[in-house]
Amino acid sequence: MTYHVQIKVMPLKDLLDPQGKAVLGGLSNLGLTTITDVRVGKHITLDIDAESEAVAKQIATEACQKLLANPVMEFFEIEMVS
Amino acid sequence: MTYHVQIKVMPLKDLLDPQGKAVLGGLSNLGLTTITDVRVGKHITLDIDAESEAVAKQIATEACQKLLANPVMEFFEIEMVS
Repeated sequence: MTYHVQIKVMPLKDLLDPQGKAVLGGLSNLGLTTITDVRVGKHITLDIDAESEAVAKQIATEACQKLLANPVMEFFEIEMVS
Repeated sequence: MTYHVQIKVMPLKDLLDPQGKAVLGGLSNLGLTTITDVRVGKHITLDIDAESEAVAKQIATEACQKLLANPVMEFFEIEMVS
């Protein structure tokens, strides 16, 4: 069965996010001054062939640890979509 | 009050996603061959000062339309976090 997995990869909360700061400046220039903070990360969707949701989640975790997220600067969250 | 908004900006489903294809190749080289499709987009979190959740959502929508998403190539989804 094919499982759809949504993965969020974001910069760690304690780290400065220059891309987010740049976007915040751009939004402010557009008049959207009530936005006080912006952080920008990656959103990745995977289609995984697996016997069970647990196996699919394990494969997604492995993909994050090996390639998708850099643990020095980023954290990831995996969400299974049924 | 400050509202936290999560925004997902993804390439349109009908369009080719070269970045996703590259990641799929990388995962395959790492032995994760049960992953059959990858799409890569942006995940953006906003902190918005607003009177109500409805106003915050409207501001987030405006931010997406004006700056965060390119409607020619991308669609966006907004999720309010309480």
